[in-house]
Amino acid sequence: MPGARLDEQLRFVAEIDKLKSVERMISLIGGARRENSAEHSWHLAVMAPLLAEYAPEELDIARVMTMLLIHDVVEIDAGDTFAFDEAGAVHQHERESRAADRLFGLLPTDQAEELRECWDDFEERGTPEARFAVALDRFQGLLMNRGNAGGTWKIHGISREQVLERMAPIRDGAPELWDVVLATLDDVGLEE
Amino acid sequence: MPGARLDEQLRFVAEIDKLKSVERMISLIGGARRENSAEHSWHLAVMAPLLAEYAPEELDIARVMTMLLIHDVVEIDAGDTFAFDEAGAVHQHERESRAADRLFGLLPTDQAEELRECWDDFEERGTPEARFAVALDRFQGLLMNRGNAGGTWKIHGISREQVLERMAPIRDGAPELWDVVLATLDDVGLEE
Repeated sequence: MPGARLDEQLRFVAEIDKLKSVERMISLIGGARRENSAEHSWHLAVMAPLLAEYAPEELDIARVMTMLLIHDVVEIDAGDTFAFDEAGAVHQHERESRAADRLFGLLPTDQAEELRECWDDFEERGTPEARFAVALDRFQGLLMNRGNAGGTWKIHGISREQVLERMAPIRDGAPELWDVVLATLDDVGLEE
Repeated sequence: MPGARLDEQLRFVAEIDKLKSVERMISLIGGARRENSAEHSWHLAVMAPLLAEYAPEELDIARVMTMLLIHDVVEIDAGDTFAFDEAGAVHQHERESRAADRLFGLLPTDQAEELRECWDDFEERGTPEARFAVALDRFQGLLMNRGNAGGTWKIHGISREQVLERMAPIRDGAPELWDVVLATLDDVGLEE
């Protein structure tokens, strides 16, 4: 019955509107306000085809974009966890996994399974697409903090070593961007 | 020189951060605040693969997503024009075309040309991908106003006839969604 299928799809589309109200720790460039997870995901998806040439392998770019567009929807239930919040990270995957069950479960079964598989892949980094997507997720945070003279790193006293650890997936997923990471940390004068 | 190329790409990525500060007339579902054009574009790009089955032809879905992700970046210079603002629409294309020159022109030539071609296609609706993308752009506005019991239509005294004219591209780009348009106008009680 196409009516019921479309109803499920539209319920999901309306539900994910809530991602626009999930605030991240990071601010817009210029610092006017904090970034939300929907516009963050938009930014990543625009970056994907433009920077795909820095991935080590040929990519299915539609899959990368889909992954980036939906990787944060679980935050509607689970909230955003700050990149350097070790306590918050303890049960993060469990919370987010329950959220994925509920949110993707709003969709017709075939689409629920597709998006869940995409989300799991991002979490597990099992494919070149997922490794590139995770690299971009980290890299966008770096660019935002670069635009804000150190941003959340400076505000929360994050060390150069902590940032390098956080950015490590860039070495796997988009190794040619690693020099930008190092140059940025020098430019904003992040301490050892 | 890869360094200069990457610099151009990163300048574009930083510049489009400004789209997060362009407000649309329409509000988030629940009405907490107005939607911005970056999160609107995110919403559309998520919808694209989920609703592609309602397009009359097979689509290159990566192209549809790219088109939806970048169709509004011109608003960084040109501002958002309210769907029912006839005065604002007079020089809209001219303003937006100049904005496209400047913004896509930040990118390396090959990528500037690709995105410009994508943006022109969206404006001209010359391909099934563009017609579906334009249909979704209209349809998302409808869903937001549906979630807000009539939203901007009620606030600005827009007639049923005006909304039907605005939604007309849905009949071309995603005809199977047209019944949702009619049902929505009935549900929110929009006058003839």
